[in-house]
Amino acid sequence: MKLKSSLTHAAMIAVLATGAQANDLRNEALDIFEPLPSTVPAVNDNPITVEKIELGKALFFDPRMSASGVFSCNSCHNLATGGDDNLETSIGHGWQRGPRNSPTALNSVFNEAQFWDGRAEDLAAQAKGPVQAGVEMANTPVNLVQTLNSMSQYVEWFSESFEGEEDPVNFDNFAKAIEAFEATLVTPAPFDAWLNGDDNAMTQEQLAGLSQFMDMGCAACHSGVNVGGSGYYPFGLIEKPGADVLPVGDKGRFAVTETVDDEYVFRAAPLRNVALTAPYFHSGKVWDLKVAVQIMAESQLGEELGDNEANQIVAFLESLTGTLPEVTYPVLPAETATTPRPSGEIITE
Amino acid sequence: MKLKSSLTHAAMIAVLATGAQANDLRNEALDIFEPLPSTVPAVNDNPITVEKIELGKALFFDPRMSASGVFSCNSCHNLATGGDDNLETSIGHGWQRGPRNSPTALNSVFNEAQFWDGRAEDLAAQAKGPVQAGVEMANTPVNLVQTLNSMSQYVEWFSESFEGEEDPVNFDNFAKAIEAFEATLVTPAPFDAWLNGDDNAMTQEQLAGLSQFMDMGCAACHSGVNVGGSGYYPFGLIEKPGADVLPVGDKGRFAVTETVDDEYVFRAAPLRNVALTAPYFHSGKVWDLKVAVQIMAESQLGEELGDNEANQIVAFLESLTGTLPEVTYPVLPAETATTPRPSGEIITE
Repeated sequence: MKLKSSLTHAAMIAVLATGAQANDLRNEALDIFEPLPSTVPAVNDNPITVEKIELGKALFFDPRMSASGVFSCNSCHNLATGGDDNLETSIGHGWQRGPRNSPTALNSVFNEAQFWDGRAEDLAAQAKGPVQAGVEMANTPVNLVQTLNSMSQYVEWFSESFEGEEDPVNFDNFAKAIEAFEATLVTPAPFDAWLNGDDNAMTQEQLAGLSQFMDMGCAACHSGVNVGGSGYYPFGLIEKPGADVLPVGDKGRFAVTETVDDEYVFRAAPLRNVALTAPYFHSGKVWDLKVAVQIMAESQLGEELGDNEANQIVAFLESLTGTLPEVTYPVLPAETATTPRPSGEIITE
Repeated sequence: MKLKSSLTHAAMIAVLATGAQANDLRNEALDIFEPLPSTVPAVNDNPITVEKIELGKALFFDPRMSASGVFSCNSCHNLATGGDDNLETSIGHGWQRGPRNSPTALNSVFNEAQFWDGRAEDLAAQAKGPVQAGVEMANTPVNLVQTLNSMSQYVEWFSESFEGEEDPVNFDNFAKAIEAFEATLVTPAPFDAWLNGDDNAMTQEQLAGLSQFMDMGCAACHSGVNVGGSGYYPFGLIEKPGADVLPVGDKGRFAVTETVDDEYVFRAAPLRNVALTAPYFHSGKVWDLKVAVQIMAESQLGEELGDNEANQIVAFLESLTGTLPEVTYPVLPAETATTPRPSGEIITE
């Protein structure tokens, strides 16, 4: 602890990367972060079974869950591209634009709450949103359940997944099955290997970035197992970013709590796989991760980051890019005579 | 052969389903059809390698191959739903409607030519179409190649797949890689097992349907390994179906050959997995397979099919529903600073 007072962590790492000092950094990091668990995490009120995971995967990839038959959960939370769609804001039903950037589904089970404003308490609650949103999948629970009931294979899968229930094919169980599948989307990364004791899992630059990340205060909001995803903070705590990045019309969590204090407050973004999920912020206006880091430093901490410091932090963030478990593309049940037909019609209320 | 003259095949099958008679039926069927091969078929001028298949799979699932970043090949040729999109006609860029029903990508390597009018000689030529079509993916070859070159992982995959080529990342090779992946989308079905000698692979009703299918003349157009997909025939040979099913504006192969004889001429639809690919015909106007069969009997053969006969033929068609090889969902390279940004803008010329 003497060393710590005379040298910054970054410098310390540069000089002595192994041995006791590396362990000091690791211990400090373990006070703030947590490695991913090696097993599928439990979720509230929703025992996870193999059957439910498989059903959830089918539903997640099924475009017939949308009114048009065009969009599935995977359209905007694409497991091939970091669990999001790499668009500023998503394009949905009738080519309408969603209001906010699509967050990654990967590791989302570890977020304290879902959506940018945390308005859904868990993934099951979240799953019910986009399906019904007029600018996204534009479906109704009634039509969705009718679609599911029209295919005997789905009815069977629901019965197996929700054994003993009298009427297992319902909107709640649809959401629970998707939650069960999403709980498996856990992506262990070099940072986890390093937290778990592998000194060689991260580069010197990444470790220097980690030190910066903790020393500067980034970790005050971006902490825990998801390096964020918990707690709500004003975007522009020190200095509001420009209206291109923080559009005045979107007041964030204010829409949920209707408390003035919550104007322009958002859930701290979880940073796992952030190198895969450009563009950034709820507005999706920034494509460059380094620029995003610099904006955050300025708006949240009042710090102007030098090139070197920003590069180090980006290097650390890249150590959060993980490996998705292998997902076999599902083969879905075929429609029947009673399956509601897709409609691309745009209904304005 | 004596039996054949005194009994219809259907009746014969009902009475004596095994032994010599079953073999007679099989021999007759083998003169007309062909079971799927057990290995990935070779394609012209495009040696198929494991590397090329994997690259092609990535490209097939990559939505960044479209201008908007919304559509991949898999959007309209969804491997989860029979290799098509189960829409009347596809919804594409800017929510525009495609002109014809999306055909299945499954077993498409066995078609004599691609598209409803056969205007692409092979899958590589086909793959270049939708990517550029303004109502589909609305991309340009230049933008697409720039997108690929912006991600070093893609550049590496192309180099490995087209070894020795000086400039492997190009539009031709993009199409060839997709062709290589699509050549693997072969779906052995109960009909193949039966053709290969397994008497129990098909039900009595399916065998009766097969007899009908051959006796009535359906097999005159729907023959070969893909039970269709070869040869061009007027839709409405005997009697034109209504304008809802055969819209007057779409003259089919006439647009390719500009020969009056080719008005309303289409490639015989390949019938493998037809039970999964509703709605039917190039117009996508008929959702019920039985109705589609009845329309075909009337328009092409001048036969009014009874309920029982139609059910038997549908049963036979269901024996063409096959099993797709397991497809692992790909993990795609992440965009970089030089990746062209997605644009949902609709450009009208």
